[in-house]
Amino acid sequence: MSTSVTDRNFAVLSTRRSANEVELTICEVEMPHADNQDDIVVEMLTAPINPSDIGTMLDQADPDTAQRADSDDRADAHGRYVARTVLHVPAAPDVDPAALGVVRRIGLEGAGRVVAAGRDSEAQALLGQVVSLMGTGTYARYVKARAQDSVPLGEETTAAQGAAALINPLTALAMVETMRREGFTALVHTAAASNLGQMLQRLCLAEGISLVNIVRRSEHIELLRSFGAKYVLDVTSPDFFEELIDALQATGATLAFDAIGGGPLAGRILLAMEQAAMRGGALLPHGPRYGTTVPKNVYLYGGLDPSPVEVDRRFGMAWSIAGWLVFPFLEEIGPERATHLKRRAVDEITTTFASGYARTIPMPDILDPDILRAISRRATGEKYLLDLTASPEYTTT
Amino acid sequence: MSTSVTDRNFAVLSTRRSANEVELTICEVEMPHADNQDDIVVEMLTAPINPSDIGTMLDQADPDTAQRADSDDRADAHGRYVARTVLHVPAAPDVDPAALGVVRRIGLEGAGRVVAAGRDSEAQALLGQVVSLMGTGTYARYVKARAQDSVPLGEETTAAQGAAALINPLTALAMVETMRREGFTALVHTAAASNLGQMLQRLCLAEGISLVNIVRRSEHIELLRSFGAKYVLDVTSPDFFEELIDALQATGATLAFDAIGGGPLAGRILLAMEQAAMRGGALLPHGPRYGTTVPKNVYLYGGLDPSPVEVDRRFGMAWSIAGWLVFPFLEEIGPERATHLKRRAVDEITTTFASGYARTIPMPDILDPDILRAISRRATGEKYLLDLTASPEYTTT
Repeated sequence: MSTSVTDRNFAVLSTRRSANEVELTICEVEMPHADNQDDIVVEMLTAPINPSDIGTMLDQADPDTAQRADSDDRADAHGRYVARTVLHVPAAPDVDPAALGVVRRIGLEGAGRVVAAGRDSEAQALLGQVVSLMGTGTYARYVKARAQDSVPLGEETTAAQGAAALINPLTALAMVETMRREGFTALVHTAAASNLGQMLQRLCLAEGISLVNIVRRSEHIELLRSFGAKYVLDVTSPDFFEELIDALQATGATLAFDAIGGGPLAGRILLAMEQAAMRGGALLPHGPRYGTTVPKNVYLYGGLDPSPVEVDRRFGMAWSIAGWLVFPFLEEIGPERATHLKRRAVDEITTTFASGYARTIPMPDILDPDILRAISRRATGEKYLLDLTASPEYTTT
Repeated sequence: MSTSVTDRNFAVLSTRRSANEVELTICEVEMPHADNQDDIVVEMLTAPINPSDIGTMLDQADPDTAQRADSDDRADAHGRYVARTVLHVPAAPDVDPAALGVVRRIGLEGAGRVVAAGRDSEAQALLGQVVSLMGTGTYARYVKARAQDSVPLGEETTAAQGAAALINPLTALAMVETMRREGFTALVHTAAASNLGQMLQRLCLAEGISLVNIVRRSEHIELLRSFGAKYVLDVTSPDFFEELIDALQATGATLAFDAIGGGPLAGRILLAMEQAAMRGGALLPHGPRYGTTVPKNVYLYGGLDPSPVEVDRRFGMAWSIAGWLVFPFLEEIGPERATHLKRRAVDEITTTFASGYARTIPMPDILDPDILRAISRRATGEKYLLDLTASPEYTTT
């Protein structure tokens, strides 16, 4: 069960040093071992920078305040480091003291070669293969993962193609699975021109599901139409709300997945759903004050806008706004169904679930203030890929 | 199946006349008949003025603008009327044109004597009895209701005692039922010094359920403590948030029923639940950004504050804010269980579910501008009861 790896390991770490300071470092960290029977150790090749990774890295810090802070002795309380950047957190009203000083590894997925494996046959079968994996701390030279969270990439799939084979594709698949399990028949999606949004549109077309896409820029309308999208609405259009009611009435969609989070959008979607239901003849059995009995649900799965959600409730009582996250959902549906979805994600990684990247950057560049600012914009079409193959230079004092 | 009633019928009606005008009238309306086998016709005696009735009557109008508007001919497009009051709606951005001109009957419960009944034995058995009932338009001399929505009051219960035997008591019972069905073990309640809040506290004491009461005035703390409440927090206290976390940690309550609706309170409750869970040692299996996996739920069942709900999401992803209404809940649990709850409500109407009233007013006075302003304050301890026995004077032109 021990690994044969002799190289040194480096990882990207984020630490809230105080209420107002976040520290990003690349440090030498311990080499992982396949301690459990179902563990594998993966020599990482590449990993995508997803919005959730940016959120975890920044932890409410303002990327415009990022400054390189490499010191001469190149050491901090947690060991030697290769590179260091500090950021300021502008307002931090309720920092849990227990969260201060906790070193967090970054990266939730990626692709790499399995270099060690536990005793389980499932783990052993992966030895030497290039896999796509989900885990914690994939922005590293080596990581440990569970065999069940890894799927081998086929011969014809590159590590770059397979780097983001799980989080976004599984999220799209889990959205459709949630829709079916909860008895809905069509979907609404916001920030819909994202990598994930494009996947969801391709998936919905393949499955014959009506999808109402809401985008934030008019040029994204054509982008999504080029994938075959039928309903694409620009939230900045003066006719947006009327168009939304029309699309909701046409599709019967009363379930939305919202990546924006902050502001009035989630509430506006619920209001449009209610008005579409009333136009479609839904009754008000308990009077107009209590609205229709048509269930209307918005799941907030992202936080592109971190400001508070504002819900102006004029859509009756049959509604819900709730957080939604793919990982607990996979636990809920059980390992068999989760494995089925993971395999489908990898099987269709160059078609339904293909990702595009604006740039590939070597691991140390993620601490570059200019790069931090660029990835923090989280703009559609500007997704970055990390190249994890080059060991960061390490100089001791 | 015909009734033996020869008297004339009068009812309180509310109509949105235009985007900016609401009209309240007392009109002569048709005498109801027991058309269906399970119908009963009830000669009304008394009915409570609940916040939901005030909301339906006012329909966003400002009670300070109420003006008597009885005209000489005492007639409008919908027939002769006895009394008329008009109110102004200050801001009405999205009025559904279909809602204009719709005449709505007011009142969702009350007590009265059954004077006619359909063929069903259940309906026939009620003939001549004084019942507590749920229905639409109980602010009238006569109403039709379903036998299953009526429960006979015992010999020792007056109509005034039984007037509010269903909506509030059933709501309290349904809250506890919801808690158990969804796997929660303790409750949070806001505007907790209300009639309903007092009932819920008595019910929770009887059932051994921990209840965290949140009130809006310091004098309400003693009021609830006099019922035996253990946890009563004043939202205006500077230490409110810390006290809330402590109470949530002590009780393990992660389900709240909120009558306020608008503003930041629902989100603050979710944040306090998450912080209580973390103090109690709950893990963050997907990193701090995604919070604990402890399910946290706030049901909004009222709208004492009609302003938008503001949710500052810093409590992970395992949360939900949703509308909640007792009527669909009773449908969901089925008629057998619903009947069980209704009978329990009436059985305990002078103990667990006793209501108190500041005043009893005759039906026509509900159109009095001073009365409208008084009931619109919806202040705890200022609930009114309607006396429906006196036929309004009716003068024809």
